[in-house]
Amino acid sequence: MKKTARRRLDLSGRVDLTHGSGGRAMAELIGQLFAAAFDNPYLAQGNDQAIVPPIGGRLAIATDSHVISPLFFPGSDIGSLAVHGTVNDLAMGGARPLYLSAGFILEEGLLLTDLQRIVESMAAAAREAGVAIVTGDTKVVERGKGDGVFISTTGVGVVPDGVNLSGANARAGDAILVSGTLGEHGMAVMSQRMSLGFASDIRSDSASLHTLADALLTACPSLRLMRDPTRGGLATTLNEIAAQSGVGMLLDETALPVSAPVRAACELLGLDPLYVANEGKLVAICAPGDAEAALAALRAHPLGHNAAIVGQVVEDAQHFVRVATAFGGERLLDWLSGEMLPRIC
Amino acid sequence: MKKTARRRLDLSGRVDLTHGSGGRAMAELIGQLFAAAFDNPYLAQGNDQAIVPPIGGRLAIATDSHVISPLFFPGSDIGSLAVHGTVNDLAMGGARPLYLSAGFILEEGLLLTDLQRIVESMAAAAREAGVAIVTGDTKVVERGKGDGVFISTTGVGVVPDGVNLSGANARAGDAILVSGTLGEHGMAVMSQRMSLGFASDIRSDSASLHTLADALLTACPSLRLMRDPTRGGLATTLNEIAAQSGVGMLLDETALPVSAPVRAACELLGLDPLYVANEGKLVAICAPGDAEAALAALRAHPLGHNAAIVGQVVEDAQHFVRVATAFGGERLLDWLSGEMLPRIC
Repeated sequence: MKKTARRRLDLSGRVDLTHGSGGRAMAELIGQLFAAAFDNPYLAQGNDQAIVPPIGGRLAIATDSHVISPLFFPGSDIGSLAVHGTVNDLAMGGARPLYLSAGFILEEGLLLTDLQRIVESMAAAAREAGVAIVTGDTKVVERGKGDGVFISTTGVGVVPDGVNLSGANARAGDAILVSGTLGEHGMAVMSQRMSLGFASDIRSDSASLHTLADALLTACPSLRLMRDPTRGGLATTLNEIAAQSGVGMLLDETALPVSAPVRAACELLGLDPLYVANEGKLVAICAPGDAEAALAALRAHPLGHNAAIVGQVVEDAQHFVRVATAFGGERLLDWLSGEMLPRIC
Repeated sequence: MKKTARRRLDLSGRVDLTHGSGGRAMAELIGQLFAAAFDNPYLAQGNDQAIVPPIGGRLAIATDSHVISPLFFPGSDIGSLAVHGTVNDLAMGGARPLYLSAGFILEEGLLLTDLQRIVESMAAAAREAGVAIVTGDTKVVERGKGDGVFISTTGVGVVPDGVNLSGANARAGDAILVSGTLGEHGMAVMSQRMSLGFASDIRSDSASLHTLADALLTACPSLRLMRDPTRGGLATTLNEIAAQSGVGMLLDETALPVSAPVRAACELLGLDPLYVANEGKLVAICAPGDAEAALAALRAHPLGHNAAIVGQVVEDAQHFVRVATAFGGERLLDWLSGEMLPRIC
């Protein structure tokens, strides 16, 4: 065997099994693609763990595995989504996001230029959110045993003293707010997947919500909880909270913000926008007396200018989520029973 | 839509896309399979993030994605491996492992009984290691877009004051130790994959090494670094350290512990046991004066009774890892160039 100098990674190629071997090809991929894009002193330690300074306060830990198909879609891609998704899971707990880890499962045959585009999108999203990607792992599976790339991200953040948000905190009488129009992420992915030209003006809302969450926390002392309505949409998220808090919810259909293109695309496909995934919106619940202040704080933020008060928490031993319709009727928003939009995140 | 009482999860079935929908089937899977097995107060918070008490000290963060095939193999399975792998990445940094997150990517069609077996194995490994699985995520991909189950685990641990281990710390003259016989994990998986009956007595060494690491840290004040030689085996790990520390290494072939069954299986398959993966062994490097104390500490531990001093760190501008053979010659242990054993972890 002859020891050779480290080669330049040839980006015109494709991922093959040697990129997951632990050997030279993997070292090249990690050093020249991942480490170059994510560059920070913790990752540069170059060990199998990153060691970061003490954190003064409670820690929030969140994880998300991303399997979205297609990998690229209007407004985002799997890379930035993998950052936003986990940053948001931290932020919804009132935490300030600090560090991310990233685990990549690559399918043999993935274009290295596609991987590079995804990694650079992740790096940009992490920089924008002020989080460092401090450690990672890369595995490669044979062609037909994966689907391009799956990315699992885990985040660590710090929870300020006095912040105690939980899905179990909603009480009858509380106000329910959403930070903007619903269903954009899901419909953007669907439109890309089904080549729906008419829906080409719908872009994913994928974004990091930690500064919006922080503004809301500051403005609203009675904030009970925040949650990002991803898979299963607003309806599923509210059902989760209703069950966790032991309450019911009553929404006002006319108050629910849905853009005209999303409404049109949903009608055509027979989908309910309240069940469609969002990746840059939050649901908040607070005491009724703070609702206007909370709304103002959301609307003052670039990611919240379409925020609305959409309903209230009610007493209900059955934990139903109901919608008062524009025509004076009422419908039940049940848990999603089947699978409407697989692999949406 | 009719709201129904929560059903019992039917374990005689298979994973389908509804288990990743965010809806009722996913809630049943998470509540009745994952949460029941991993039961702890942080997971029971039931939010999209776990909030844990302040940690007094530097944090270690490590992540590993596990794609091993087959899912079950002699001595372990993907579930316990996913715990051991990440616990060990923390422990090799001198950290005490505290918390794990787990991201599951399930392939449609996976038997729910297989998933249950894997989850219970993870839970048992976590209990044994004294770590809590505090948060997680589950995604489902269509048949043919995954391979049964992939598991990404991320660990958070605390690094005691004064502990500063790194692959960059090795110095010429230092002693190199391994904690036991080499190549068991890789050969156990290979024997299962290739139905090699003769190798049926080889079992994976997969184990959590944090108590072994702790014993070594206590006994050996000059400990420079520990690392677990997984993918690519001892040879690849030593090449990484040599490059990181800017040194060479010289091993004594007669001192390298390899069991007779592993040696025989490797010979038959034309494999070098020094490149075969381990999941329950560590490499340690320390000042020569501490080598005997380090060896005694390793041998006193149940996971280290076959430990050995296997060579020394030398000056070498080319960072070569060499082996002095039993016949008085010398061979170079280069970086792994191709892929010998895909999907070994």
